[in-house]
Amino acid sequence: MSTEAAADHPAPGHPAPGHPAADPDLRHHGDTEVGGGLVDLAVNVRAGTPPPWLRSLLSTALTDLAAYPDGRAARAAVARRHRRPVGEVLLTAGAAEAFVLLARTVRPRRAVVVHPQFTEPEAALRDAGHTVERLLLRPEDGFRLDPAAVPEDADLVVVGNPTNPTSVLHPAADLAALARPGRVLVVDEAFADTVPGEAESLAGRGDLPGLVVLRSLTKTWGLAGLRIGYALAPERIVAALSAAQPLWPVSTPALAAAEACCAPAALAEAEQAARDTAADRAYLLSRLAEIPSILTYGQPAASFVLIRMPDATGVRERLRRTGFAVRRGDTFPGLGPDWLRIAVRDKATQDAFFEALTALLL
Amino acid sequence: MSTEAAADHPAPGHPAPGHPAADPDLRHHGDTEVGGGLVDLAVNVRAGTPPPWLRSLLSTALTDLAAYPDGRAARAAVARRHRRPVGEVLLTAGAAEAFVLLARTVRPRRAVVVHPQFTEPEAALRDAGHTVERLLLRPEDGFRLDPAAVPEDADLVVVGNPTNPTSVLHPAADLAALARPGRVLVVDEAFADTVPGEAESLAGRGDLPGLVVLRSLTKTWGLAGLRIGYALAPERIVAALSAAQPLWPVSTPALAAAEACCAPAALAEAEQAARDTAADRAYLLSRLAEIPSILTYGQPAASFVLIRMPDATGVRERLRRTGFAVRRGDTFPGLGPDWLRIAVRDKATQDAFFEALTALLL
Repeated sequence: MSTEAAADHPAPGHPAPGHPAADPDLRHHGDTEVGGGLVDLAVNVRAGTPPPWLRSLLSTALTDLAAYPDGRAARAAVARRHRRPVGEVLLTAGAAEAFVLLARTVRPRRAVVVHPQFTEPEAALRDAGHTVERLLLRPEDGFRLDPAAVPEDADLVVVGNPTNPTSVLHPAADLAALARPGRVLVVDEAFADTVPGEAESLAGRGDLPGLVVLRSLTKTWGLAGLRIGYALAPERIVAALSAAQPLWPVSTPALAAAEACCAPAALAEAEQAARDTAADRAYLLSRLAEIPSILTYGQPAASFVLIRMPDATGVRERLRRTGFAVRRGDTFPGLGPDWLRIAVRDKATQDAFFEALTALLL
Repeated sequence: MSTEAAADHPAPGHPAPGHPAADPDLRHHGDTEVGGGLVDLAVNVRAGTPPPWLRSLLSTALTDLAAYPDGRAARAAVARRHRRPVGEVLLTAGAAEAFVLLARTVRPRRAVVVHPQFTEPEAALRDAGHTVERLLLRPEDGFRLDPAAVPEDADLVVVGNPTNPTSVLHPAADLAALARPGRVLVVDEAFADTVPGEAESLAGRGDLPGLVVLRSLTKTWGLAGLRIGYALAPERIVAALSAAQPLWPVSTPALAAAEACCAPAALAEAEQAARDTAADRAYLLSRLAEIPSILTYGQPAASFVLIRMPDATGVRERLRRTGFAVRRGDTFPGLGPDWLRIAVRDKATQDAFFEALTALLL
């Protein structure tokens, strides 16, 4: 009798070129940086969510809790929304569950994770005993991905689009070019619905071999606490992931939310929110550009912006003392202590933030 | 690259004595037998749940969904309720998640499941590639467990108490005698809170080596749709199971429910419900005793009763046509087509049920 090695976080696999010697804490997440009355620019969840209509709908779903969850209607709604067959949809308890299911189900010989990006996919792969190579995109390239840089024999490739924390949106064609038979290509689209028109999304590309698109309802709809997301993938992969799930993996309120957020009115609301975010992000970038010591790289496209500045760690700590939480960047592979991630908020919140920031930098 | 064999339900391991040749469908559950306006005597969830105070509390929890779940308060509440250290408590997305985590984490050389019982533990173990032996308890023994019948070298033993579907409550001392160093003893106490005083529960026995007690909030509180349960186990096992969970495994409303259901007033309400169930069950047994073709075995102690009668399958189908759903028994290892499980309901529901049943049997 023994307990699995997964009980400990194994040491990193063999380092790829550029893999830093001191490994960042992959299990750090922005939610531990907020609270205590701080203004939250650390967590990438849309402010003022969930909207009243969604809260009301969830409240109604609570009357039905004595029955076991039945995911059929929600699964069908997601399938319709993305014009995919129902068999290509898997509902999950947040994207986090999908990463664990993939790590448990796919048996890669060569797994490559494109960094900097959300750290859970790599953490889940390592926990399941897999060796992970990192492909590090560089700020001086605007965090652009050259598809040719992905090793041809990589049979599992994980990339985010738009990418957390860089906010960079890769062209759909570049990512589609990575799909091939014998490879599982995981595109984490947790922030795709923060981009107007869901530009560059591969969610509808059921034709691409081995493509797994992961989506979240957390960011746009403020449902981080509900645990709901989904995967779009070939039926064979969906079946394998599903078999690794516990019975009744998604709760009844989460299923109600998934179904409701696929309705045309909800999609229109999300689209408007994405446009508002784009306008607020433009304002954020213009304010950042006024501060010479702050650099940005590439073209931010999501609901957050990655910045580089001297003594970012000290600035972050001093911001907390003045009431503002921003996300540390040093826990993302490929970044370091001079990086911060800032969530896009409304102009009033930004103005207050910049007042505090410029006061600190004087 | 390959996907795991877990995608298919593997064939049974080497059959233990008495293991039936035709394997029952371990993935059949009572929730598929209800609906369509049928009076539900098939699913063992307390009627009229969740109570209004709990629905109201959950509704309040919905305002906080934009934040990621924080399980600390709920975990502490469960620990206090059972007088266990916090490190010996793991919150799970229902007991179903706990079975999968155990199957993924524990590496048994000889796994023994005591049957008839809830089929998910065996199904999860098989899905994870383990061979499972069945120890079949016999109706003519009142489904009593002789601890000496458990093989000494079994390093994983799974037993339910009180047991679904037999309703039999094993003496705590008999189960405690099964605990030993080098063995993981899993006691599924999903129905323990339907027994007045939680008699024979091992939840507080942190002193027993390798003991894993699984609890549910589903049955008494009507939270099947919310996915919430917990495990009580040595800290080493909790840490291993926790590492196999996805990030943020339990939703914010489920955490709020777990915390609230540990409060003294909730425990008093559950105790009263257990006493009401005992009275209703006595009535159910008295009515069953009036029908000579119906047999019961052992001393039912939970919120359901297992019965044996000729042509149970036909009776079940005819009951459905008159508006009543009861649970088929033939999907439980060790039972067969002449068994049915009946949930304990209030006297009025039972009277209507017996009117329909006796009319069928005329």
